[in-house]
Amino acid sequence: MTIKKIKDYLQEYSYLKSIQSLLHWDMETMMPPGAIEDRAARLSYIQGKIHSHITSKEYKNLIKELESKKLKPLEKKLAKELRWDFDLYEVLPEKHVKELSHAQTIATHAWATARKNDDWKSFSPHLQKLIDLKRKEAALYKSKKPYDALIKLHDKEFSSDEINKLFGDLKAGLLELTDKVKKDKTFVKVKDLKGPFDIKAQKKLSQYAAALCGLPKEYSRLDISTHPFSINISPLDQRITTRYVTENLDSLSSTMHEVGHALYEHNLPREWEGTPFQEAVSLSVHESQSRFWENVIGRSREFCTFLHPTMKEHFPKAMKGISPEELYHVFNKSVPGLIRVESCELYYNLHIIIRYEIEEMIFNQGMNSKDIPEIWNQKYKEYLGIKPKNFAQGLLQDSHWAGGAFGYFPTYTLGNLISGSLYHQMKKDLPGFKKDIEKGKFTKIGQYLKDNIHVKGRSVTARDLVGELDVKDYLSYLSAKFKD
Amino acid sequence: MTIKKIKDYLQEYSYLKSIQSLLHWDMETMMPPGAIEDRAARLSYIQGKIHSHITSKEYKNLIKELESKKLKPLEKKLAKELRWDFDLYEVLPEKHVKELSHAQTIATHAWATARKNDDWKSFSPHLQKLIDLKRKEAALYKSKKPYDALIKLHDKEFSSDEINKLFGDLKAGLLELTDKVKKDKTFVKVKDLKGPFDIKAQKKLSQYAAALCGLPKEYSRLDISTHPFSINISPLDQRITTRYVTENLDSLSSTMHEVGHALYEHNLPREWEGTPFQEAVSLSVHESQSRFWENVIGRSREFCTFLHPTMKEHFPKAMKGISPEELYHVFNKSVPGLIRVESCELYYNLHIIIRYEIEEMIFNQGMNSKDIPEIWNQKYKEYLGIKPKNFAQGLLQDSHWAGGAFGYFPTYTLGNLISGSLYHQMKKDLPGFKKDIEKGKFTKIGQYLKDNIHVKGRSVTARDLVGELDVKDYLSYLSAKFKD
Repeated sequence: MTIKKIKDYLQEYSYLKSIQSLLHWDMETMMPPGAIEDRAARLSYIQGKIHSHITSKEYKNLIKELESKKLKPLEKKLAKELRWDFDLYEVLPEKHVKELSHAQTIATHAWATARKNDDWKSFSPHLQKLIDLKRKEAALYKSKKPYDALIKLHDKEFSSDEINKLFGDLKAGLLELTDKVKKDKTFVKVKDLKGPFDIKAQKKLSQYAAALCGLPKEYSRLDISTHPFSINISPLDQRITTRYVTENLDSLSSTMHEVGHALYEHNLPREWEGTPFQEAVSLSVHESQSRFWENVIGRSREFCTFLHPTMKEHFPKAMKGISPEELYHVFNKSVPGLIRVESCELYYNLHIIIRYEIEEMIFNQGMNSKDIPEIWNQKYKEYLGIKPKNFAQGLLQDSHWAGGAFGYFPTYTLGNLISGSLYHQMKKDLPGFKKDIEKGKFTKIGQYLKDNIHVKGRSVTARDLVGELDVKDYLSYLSAKFKD
Repeated sequence: MTIKKIKDYLQEYSYLKSIQSLLHWDMETMMPPGAIEDRAARLSYIQGKIHSHITSKEYKNLIKELESKKLKPLEKKLAKELRWDFDLYEVLPEKHVKELSHAQTIATHAWATARKNDDWKSFSPHLQKLIDLKRKEAALYKSKKPYDALIKLHDKEFSSDEINKLFGDLKAGLLELTDKVKKDKTFVKVKDLKGPFDIKAQKKLSQYAAALCGLPKEYSRLDISTHPFSINISPLDQRITTRYVTENLDSLSSTMHEVGHALYEHNLPREWEGTPFQEAVSLSVHESQSRFWENVIGRSREFCTFLHPTMKEHFPKAMKGISPEELYHVFNKSVPGLIRVESCELYYNLHIIIRYEIEEMIFNQGMNSKDIPEIWNQKYKEYLGIKPKNFAQGLLQDSHWAGGAFGYFPTYTLGNLISGSLYHQMKKDLPGFKKDIEKGKFTKIGQYLKDNIHVKGRSVTARDLVGELDVKDYLSYLSAKFKD
């Protein structure tokens, strides 16, 4: 009965979130540019509504009512997750939440312009404002270290100490592995496919790949945006974006990445609408899904074999004389580059570790916006041996900070680690899965991820799903791949 | 001070309306089909929020507070308009408003499918449900005649008695004029442009026309939908749609029509955000703007002369050997057709009068959904001399009834009448306006409409703006055109 009341109450929350998502999606894909201030006001308004709805006295009393009862294990878990969210939101004054939302919208807009004009100076004050707001927020949470508070917004099962340990081990393993790969040259001396790549053909390929991976056209759409993203408008309305340039085929991997996110959201249990059980268990596990489809599947030898004829059909000129094995090497060419989203699997996590370390310096050590460029360049030199020539190739490449999403980046690498565990688990549970990939059959793989992860929502912990994380599974997956 | 409080209160109303508009626009242009039920729930939710916001006790007290003060004329007018809206909404229970919103969304979806499949039977019960809900609503308003209540939702300055009189005179005048045009044959024996008309070229032409008429790209966008429409997401975010088929060039006139609406919304006084002063004075005047751009300008000899080279550029094959004068005749070919939105100016109002008379039968005389097809066909035979061969060409052609918008149709013809008055007024006030059209210069015309109509919002009445309506101005405009 109390649960029924809570579900009824949270249905409105799900409607408001849905509206917020549509306002966002539209802003990034469709909105005329002159409407940005109008939109910022509406987003801030909705953010305020959401906040007041889920911090109300009425709702607090409902949670207390639930907590006071004798509960079955699943109900107990629900109460725990409701309480977690409530405490998280209650701490923040509505004024702060609305101010942050407004600053995020305006800064994201400023970032897009700054990136286009390679103009760090115009963006730096916006970033500083977001840093200040997020510091204020972290202080309100009173966690051991300020950065931990922001990490917990994206993955509540991790602290910066734990991540430091994991990322430290990973960095050591990666630097060792990249050295070997550099010497071996199999994945370095790869001739690239020659563009230009027709945009229409890329669109068709992305649409094809999305359907192939199991994203139903009836319940989704694929558009274009500056920075690819995935957003849940409602369970039956998943929207993903990619971007097309004639110079490369990154649109394919970015589409498969976003499909991984969209499938998770689409499969969350609809009977728990508006409750934590209809949410992903963590952003890290969310990223494990996108990285699984993008890399473990999309950059596998089996997938390259399967996709080879389709690639020849769409890009006959570029694919002339390219064998499936050569396509596999093209898709996995491993040289250090400056752009995170264009990175091969081998170097990707170094991009993340750099961002993570910088965020830690900002929030745990007091670094400010103006000092980021120097540190950024220094770390790229140290870990990847290269330095950006401009800001667009440097710290203006990502939109996350402009959106105030500090603590988000580490979940990409945590997601990669989880995808490594999943890979090993799937080898045991679905012994034929590599053959399925080679045949372009993804039903069983999709069902496996749905049953074992998606439909569980937050009714379990990430550790329940994928065990204790260590870097061995993932490093062994990478080693096997790049030393084969 | 009270006005400041009211403005603050109504800002939230404007945000909610804005969100409702975006949910609608997205549903008609972008949403994946499987999301329809989810969307219906969200639209119904927002409709409920809007309703409870503008019927609250707090708001009622603010209006009372304003009414109790010594007010200047403009403030008095504001109080009057606030009261009008409040009384209108207060009558309706929130339950009814939400039920209606849900039924409208579902029926609109059912209509689109029924239209595609020419399946009247599947749609008829949806229509009956809307008729029932709207009868209930009309009864709550306690007007002299039930239909009057629905007319007043779209134009509060008219009753069905007044419209009967106007439309009666107009019908007589039109039937006389169409007889003459039929005999004269100048606008009947016109060779059509030969398609197919390239869709890309049509898109370019529509984009060009929208910009030409003064719709700023920075604050607007043009998309595709089943039924063309215009919607105000926010003052600085105007969205219009059209539809492209290779068989004809209707996309041009439908674009110019929607531009007329969008310019009105874009020019409404932003300092009165959320208040009636930032709303169109009536839907009839709204339609006068769209019909003015579509017909008085877009189908004028001067415009055809101006557009001739652009048309040749976009459609070189179809335009081969076509002179500007011939293009003018093509754009005004006058033969009775079955589709309202494809109709020439001469027959257009007969399409409306048929719909108006049917609505009157439904609401003043108790006719039900199942009896509409027979009456529809009978009236088409009588007024236009033709009969639809299927439902898609018949009463399934328009989306208005599926959207519950009874009382909307008459505003199209009232709008035409007003556009006739505007034409005569503009000839006096802007003596060079026809020369401007011929040169493709629309700045003065746009400014004239902005200054004399748009920026006034609801701070005046429609009668203040365009005087007492009679059919003479409009009939003389048509006679001059079709007998020249």
